[in-house]
Amino acid sequence: MTAVGNLTLNLCKSYEASTTHSKLAVFHSGGKKLGIFGGGGRIKAIGASKTTCQQIQVSHNYNGDIITNNCGDGFSGTSVHRSGKNTIKMSTIGNSSNILWHKCSVEKSDREELLNQKGCVIWITGLSGSGKSTMACALSRSLHARGKLAYILDGDNCRHGLNSDLSFEAEDRAENIRRTGEVAKLFADAGIICIASLISPFRKERDTCRALLPEGDFIEVYMDVPLQVCESRDPKGLYKLARAGKIKGFTGIDDPYEPPLNAEIVLRQTEGTCDSPNDLAEKIVSYLERKGYLNA
Amino acid sequence: MTAVGNLTLNLCKSYEASTTHSKLAVFHSGGKKLGIFGGGGRIKAIGASKTTCQQIQVSHNYNGDIITNNCGDGFSGTSVHRSGKNTIKMSTIGNSSNILWHKCSVEKSDREELLNQKGCVIWITGLSGSGKSTMACALSRSLHARGKLAYILDGDNCRHGLNSDLSFEAEDRAENIRRTGEVAKLFADAGIICIASLISPFRKERDTCRALLPEGDFIEVYMDVPLQVCESRDPKGLYKLARAGKIKGFTGIDDPYEPPLNAEIVLRQTEGTCDSPNDLAEKIVSYLERKGYLNA
Repeated sequence: MTAVGNLTLNLCKSYEASTTHSKLAVFHSGGKKLGIFGGGGRIKAIGASKTTCQQIQVSHNYNGDIITNNCGDGFSGTSVHRSGKNTIKMSTIGNSSNILWHKCSVEKSDREELLNQKGCVIWITGLSGSGKSTMACALSRSLHARGKLAYILDGDNCRHGLNSDLSFEAEDRAENIRRTGEVAKLFADAGIICIASLISPFRKERDTCRALLPEGDFIEVYMDVPLQVCESRDPKGLYKLARAGKIKGFTGIDDPYEPPLNAEIVLRQTEGTCDSPNDLAEKIVSYLERKGYLNA
Repeated sequence: MTAVGNLTLNLCKSYEASTTHSKLAVFHSGGKKLGIFGGGGRIKAIGASKTTCQQIQVSHNYNGDIITNNCGDGFSGTSVHRSGKNTIKMSTIGNSSNILWHKCSVEKSDREELLNQKGCVIWITGLSGSGKSTMACALSRSLHARGKLAYILDGDNCRHGLNSDLSFEAEDRAENIRRTGEVAKLFADAGIICIASLISPFRKERDTCRALLPEGDFIEVYMDVPLQVCESRDPKGLYKLARAGKIKGFTGIDDPYEPPLNAEIVLRQTEGTCDSPNDLAEKIVSYLERKGYLNA
């Protein structure tokens, strides 16, 4: 079920601290009832005092079951009564049916303007011990120092809450990444620079997360650090456990890591080079600046 | 496995654009190795130029497997090299083991200061058609007009992404609420006023979400609207389908709704009363203002 059309009405009135009532008709198209707005009754337009012209946009679908009732309390037929940006869509998504997409009048661009930045996802991928979390922190500090709002979604941290029901089995690891990608998308939509830091070993899964976001808003950062460097750091002692066979399916040891083919940013570290996390974070900040993410 | 102690070190140096090296010892307690910081080698303290005093705080656990290696690139032994707020904890959470809690130097309070507001969750509960989404939008608009950053997590919207794998069966509905609660918690932690709008019919599930947040930060808003009013609105046509037996387990029809016993805010609407969504949203805004959430 997809939206088949849009209808825009303009109700231009000055209604400081007052309400206007408009009688609206029933719309039909190709024999399909697209919606009854006002239902032969009255709807109440509610506006903040500064609003002098209200545009009403309605997305309808083949079902046409967007129906308001006759109580003019502003709660019925949400899409009609609210601001110009409200739309309504019924659909079936995955296992969920009869769900309605509520698009609100405050949109991503409004939040971005408030924050003077653009929402996006910095997706940091790499082996365990490659410095993803350290990089995420350094980046978060650097952005904060510039007055930008960033938030870190760390693979491990998410497993303390949202993903605490997931194991490290292949299927659950994939679900861990899917959920993190979906949450990162919400954060970007909130206008935030979301820093997701996960091993995320498989290209396909990373690309699925990328596909959730508008072109350009998913910025893949590859921590390109050789396995032997990561293993020598072994900050969590996990390589040791994996080598001892106490952890199975450990990325880089007995499970593959697929390096990105087209990461937006590659942070290369080889044995001997000792770039500081801050130095590397600045490369990401420069990228964001160049691409206009640090302004609305 | 829980943290058994904290260790705080102060490294006071001026290291504008420079690095300092400190030799640190191995710490033992009660025969347990708590961690090797520097591992007999050297660690590099990395600080922004404004940092003149670095406090190092380490949370350790019984395992004591927080070990750094000998590469002074700032990426090893994360907790030691980073700012004073970094802590490290290994734990087993639900089905996840060997996960490390990365606490970053930019904290909730820093983000709140940036935004001049306090992160919290406004949890709007009520029957289908009680006006939850409409209220969420009105509230979002009102907060935005005050320069506050709010973000709506709508039950239906989340089902388009994060929760698209979930059905409307009892177990999946519970998981839907759990995940939304966990994501709401992340948004609050980001400093955002997160508006969660879900039927969330059961007290126990709502209370589980409440328990995720610090005291006071979960603000339950009950849309107290009689079933007959919701049913007469029926904005999605779902009551009609439920009455016709085409939807099973519909809250209010053949599934229970447990009203909150101690909601922070009750927005009561009876047949005949026609408070506008904006009027009701202002009650929530007043509450937030009174409780200090609209300032850092």
